[in-house]
Amino acid sequence: MLLIGEKLNGFIPSVGKAIRAKDEAFLRDLAVRQEAAGADYLDVCAAVDSEIEADTLRWLVELAEDASSLPLCIDSPNPQVLASVLPYCKRVGIINSVSMESGKIETLFPLIADTNWKVIALLCSNAGVPERAEGRLAIFAQIRAAAKDYGISEDRLLIDPIVHTLSTDETALSTFAECAGEIRKRSSKAHVVSGLSNISYGLPVRPLINHAFLLYAMQAGMNAAILDVLDREMIGLMHAGAALLGEDEYCMDYITAFRENRIGPLKD
Amino acid sequence: MLLIGEKLNGFIPSVGKAIRAKDEAFLRDLAVRQEAAGADYLDVCAAVDSEIEADTLRWLVELAEDASSLPLCIDSPNPQVLASVLPYCKRVGIINSVSMESGKIETLFPLIADTNWKVIALLCSNAGVPERAEGRLAIFAQIRAAAKDYGISEDRLLIDPIVHTLSTDETALSTFAECAGEIRKRSSKAHVVSGLSNISYGLPVRPLINHAFLLYAMQAGMNAAILDVLDREMIGLMHAGAALLGEDEYCMDYITAFRENRIGPLKD
Repeated sequence: MLLIGEKLNGFIPSVGKAIRAKDEAFLRDLAVRQEAAGADYLDVCAAVDSEIEADTLRWLVELAEDASSLPLCIDSPNPQVLASVLPYCKRVGIINSVSMESGKIETLFPLIADTNWKVIALLCSNAGVPERAEGRLAIFAQIRAAAKDYGISEDRLLIDPIVHTLSTDETALSTFAECAGEIRKRSSKAHVVSGLSNISYGLPVRPLINHAFLLYAMQAGMNAAILDVLDREMIGLMHAGAALLGEDEYCMDYITAFRENRIGPLKD
Repeated sequence: MLLIGEKLNGFIPSVGKAIRAKDEAFLRDLAVRQEAAGADYLDVCAAVDSEIEADTLRWLVELAEDASSLPLCIDSPNPQVLASVLPYCKRVGIINSVSMESGKIETLFPLIADTNWKVIALLCSNAGVPERAEGRLAIFAQIRAAAKDYGISEDRLLIDPIVHTLSTDETALSTFAECAGEIRKRSSKAHVVSGLSNISYGLPVRPLINHAFLLYAMQAGMNAAILDVLDREMIGLMHAGAALLGEDEYCMDYITAFRENRIGPLKD
């Protein structure tokens, strides 16, 4: 599993407040702790007014790269913002995100074509998110073709089938799982990713739903996630799931994670 | 999910001590708490020397039936012990267990043939537990045929495919899941049950493995379990899993469990 730490995101109220107050200590601490918890990338999302978003995200990128040794996942709904921040990233990371919404691929694929940057691609278009897996997989085919046109190899694609909210869509898991399975079957190299917490929106005790979803999504083929790596229970279940699914020979990763104090009751 | 509370079992050291000391208050409290936590049945297992097992189990049955309003799951590896205790049970419950080991079915099926007692049947024989699903399913066919001979309807069978230990068998989940899926496919009425904690034997932070296994086993078709109903995290994940698997319309059971303080952070 490729783990993208979700915490440096201005949509989280306490983090948004820290970003607006330029509280560097608070934000650096989040970067440090996510790295220690085992994140492979740090998502950075400014979530501020559009006129200051590019400058704020650039500031956040510099802070996060300085506080940790991890590459970043630069996150904005605005492709122009991502394009303007990209040159300031010292490490090769992930663009979050493109989709078939107009302007996104056209703006961003040329910029990363001759690099090693990865890109998260959401399976939606100007018409929204297709209700059923079939429609989302049609968008996957379009994104795959566009990547090929730009010479972006499939191992650099992280495909997000998009998770609906369980409280309003009983098929939220089954549709996601169908997409994930098909994507992995059709491409041996593309990753399947999810910012999974949307699954539990509107329900009580959201971590329970998020944790169970993570395990089922892993089984369906998801091999990357944007999640709270500081949620120790979730990371523990992820390692347990990998062992049960036969992806961890002799449970060595699981046992190592325990010995390194990354799962189970916190040792001092 | 049919939930069988596992706590009144002398193999648990603190419970074994209480049984040997005839500590009624301690044992009654376990019965009361398991009922409050949502158990459908209470497993009772004496786990004492063979010469006193029948008397001890009878005493435990009377105590548990008096302390709670639940039916019991009377549990012994010795079919003679089960046969001798059966007449003293006031409520119709579950026999735990038979298998194709000689003496078990022959002793117990005649006693429950004309009753509504259910029975847990382990997929093993005198030759042990078959390594692969195919061998276990052959035993299922034999048990099913024997039940039919005695006029025991399939809805009274709880089939336990037997869980191997993950630390020594990487296919522990996949073999269990294959059995569970096939049993549910071949019989629309038989339950699939598991005493699931064996999965985590020898590994650190066993609850993580047990919790993840429960979710995967539910998806594979397991619809009954002997487990620690006092493990609040596990019960929460079980409800979350049912909702994600589309078995809980509008998440009503999940939301009700939360409102009734059965899942999530404990409210006073």
